[in-house]
Amino acid sequence: MEFSSKLLEKAVNEMSQLPGVGKRTALRLVLHLLRQPESQTVQLAQALLNMRTEIKFCKSCNNISDNVLCEICSNPRRQQDLICVVEDIRDVMAIENTSSFKGLYHVLGGKISPMDGVGPHDLNITPLVNKVKEGQVKELIFALSPTMEGDTTNFYIFKQIQGLDVVTSTIARGIAVGDELEYADEVTLGRSILNRIPFEGSLKS
Amino acid sequence: MEFSSKLLEKAVNEMSQLPGVGKRTALRLVLHLLRQPESQTVQLAQALLNMRTEIKFCKSCNNISDNVLCEICSNPRRQQDLICVVEDIRDVMAIENTSSFKGLYHVLGGKISPMDGVGPHDLNITPLVNKVKEGQVKELIFALSPTMEGDTTNFYIFKQIQGLDVVTSTIARGIAVGDELEYADEVTLGRSILNRIPFEGSLKS
Ligand SMILES: [Zn+2]
Ligand SMILES: [Zn+2]
Repeated sequence: MEFSSKLLEKAVNEMSQLPGVGKRTALRLVLHLLRQPESQTVQLAQALLNMRTEIKFCKSCNNISDNVLCEICSNPRRQQDLICVVEDIRDVMAIENTSSFKGLYHVLGGKISPMDGVGPHDLNITPLVNKVKEGQVKELIFALSPTMEGDTTNFYIFKQIQGLDVVTSTIARGIAVGDELEYADEVTLGRSILNRIPFEGSLKS
Repeated sequence: MEFSSKLLEKAVNEMSQLPGVGKRTALRLVLHLLRQPESQTVQLAQALLNMRTEIKFCKSCNNISDNVLCEICSNPRRQQDLICVVEDIRDVMAIENTSSFKGLYHVLGGKISPMDGVGPHDLNITPLVNKVKEGQVKELIFALSPTMEGDTTNFYIFKQIQGLDVVTSTIARGIAVGDELEYADEVTLGRSILNRIPFEGSLKS
């Protein structure tokens, strides 16, 4: 792609670093910004900068937060000894949307995936195991996507806490095996939380 | 969508102002930035800001440029009296890629589209007509997309310069009627410039 402007080229190149955004899409987005008032670009750039430099992760659950403790963890009406383990913040948002869960979350930040070079130590697992060891947790709900990587991660955590005084469950597999959790419809997802089943440490779905 | 962070919410909202970017896609892009080094977001924001505030439009052809005159208009080896009329800068890039055209461009900034509220006076047409009136142009090549709006625009300009001493042509319709010019393959597009045909002011393709 030949550009008549270095400023344009730089903007397109930076934009096309985003996942799923090719050079052509990036050019379309950037030309759109050029046609809009300058304030739109200023607000976009400022919002991205503020987010990236100021955002915090909740000290307890690793959810994205504007404070040391997120709004969920610091809410006294949430059940403190019921913890729902999820891959990432989008899953917290998806489950919160269902209004079917009143405990806390623990955000792993991914799932074990040897193919992608993600091992247990790249994830936020140890603090979770420690919470269980300290007797803070009555029940742990595994709410990872029902994929091979999700099952592997469930199983890894299960082995770490086996023998400790905690109930483990997984969300009911109303969600088709292989589907990403975040795309599940609200009813299915909400019901799968209510109908959660004991987790037996089996890799079979 | 419920956000646990105002900073995140603001970034997602701004991102989803971009065309074709829904809230979910915006969230995915923003979370991606959070996982990358801070420098990536800083560079993206800076590139967008620099582009939006510093970019210029060529005084002669309306192409995006870092200078008063773009590199094409200021190139003495380009044929100055042969002008290719295009909708937008992406078409300039597409035609330049074919290396089949050695004249100058004139970027209209859109096409006449009553449906979208775009009339002739919203476009960069008058300076083009003036160039022709001043005798600067030997041949005008209409290279708009072969859609109804493209044909209407061609016809409107043709009427403005009718009777003046200028040859008008349109790119050969090797491109399927109704297709957007920028998605044409290079060979078809290059050939359609070389095999351009006289423009008769007819709306029929
Ligand atoms: Zn928290
Ligand atoms: Zn120019």
